[in-house]
Amino acid sequence: MDPDFTAPEFFPALVELLHWRRDVRRFQRDEIAEADVLDLLRVAQLAPSVGMSQPWRFVRVRSARARRAARENFERCNAEALGGYAGEDAALYAHLKLSGLDDAPVQLAVFCDHGCATGRGLGRRTMPETAEYSVVTAVHTLWLAARARGIGLGWISILDPQAIAAALSVPEGWGLVAYLCLGRPVETHLDPELERAGWERRQKLDDVLIER
Amino acid sequence: MDPDFTAPEFFPALVELLHWRRDVRRFQRDEIAEADVLDLLRVAQLAPSVGMSQPWRFVRVRSARARRAARENFERCNAEALGGYAGEDAALYAHLKLSGLDDAPVQLAVFCDHGCATGRGLGRRTMPETAEYSVVTAVHTLWLAARARGIGLGWISILDPQAIAAALSVPEGWGLVAYLCLGRPVETHLDPELERAGWERRQKLDDVLIER
Repeated sequence: MDPDFTAPEFFPALVELLHWRRDVRRFQRDEIAEADVLDLLRVAQLAPSVGMSQPWRFVRVRSARARRAARENFERCNAEALGGYAGEDAALYAHLKLSGLDDAPVQLAVFCDHGCATGRGLGRRTMPETAEYSVVTAVHTLWLAARARGIGLGWISILDPQAIAAALSVPEGWGLVAYLCLGRPVETHLDPELERAGWERRQKLDDVLIER
Repeated sequence: MDPDFTAPEFFPALVELLHWRRDVRRFQRDEIAEADVLDLLRVAQLAPSVGMSQPWRFVRVRSARARRAARENFERCNAEALGGYAGEDAALYAHLKLSGLDDAPVQLAVFCDHGCATGRGLGRRTMPETAEYSVVTAVHTLWLAARARGIGLGWISILDPQAIAAALSVPEGWGLVAYLCLGRPVETHLDPELERAGWERRQKLDDVLIER
């Protein structure tokens, strides 16, 4: 029997999911059931990885101390980023909500284990960055799966990755790839957060495709 | 009306898709309809990107000259990689089929435009690598969409990225993220290619999850 995703109605629903996926910054504070979080993490492990290296490492950030470190780190980096804009850009930037760290019930720091022996180095010799890319596909898998379950995800990159790694005392050789907030979103919407705020618009395919 | 992907039958089908996604190296030579290729590329543009920077750039590799350059590059890098293994690993590596470059009807080199002004630098100050990560989510989106349409994708990283960029004469500031083969797969299967070949196995969640 063919798998369900090969049915004709699946593809349009998948494209809908991609349209409705958002980088969420406004979360309800209600907890997410632990079983649901673990389910999503197991699904994330189905992501592709270079040489099957599976270099993703997930840190559940639960303690008040660790969460405070992340929030303070974001606030410092965000203030510095604001200082890099002037005029209208600065005014607009200052009004953007760029993290849900205060409300998101689930927070995950996702690392790449650069020293992992899994995969025996296959495919990483000329492009070692593919290890981090593998972690990115796991984050993206988690993101889509969460959205399909009604759980929002926000990716914060306005952080000092080394300071986060130090604050979380992760093993040697782990590099931060993403800091994620998860929770029920306050609202669902089709327009990207930054399009809605007037920061940027979607490009067309013609803008990004060439032939050789 | 709620979007179709919120229906209870969607999530299990999505997880099935993730289970059945493969890194394909054995392609049928039949062409993929041009409209289908463009459709997939438009869907890929729905991927998340840092600050809505959308830094992905797609190069359709069509000419015999460009394809030959990619194949020769792969062969050289793969021979060098083989030289890094010894004993049983070397014997096993030599038997792995690591690219579908000879047969895949569609080939795409995917780049990150590091100089793109889109997104106005938002989120890229402390973690500039998030631009490349955005390109990775576009590749992963393309991958899943292709699989849902019965089209296989293989990601080749055993390449010298600078030599590929030079051979394709891409604009200054574009860095190679992925070289992709697309086409109808010779077979569909549930077990990852490298698991089937005895190279690596899936990890458990307990292996990759810690708490702080």
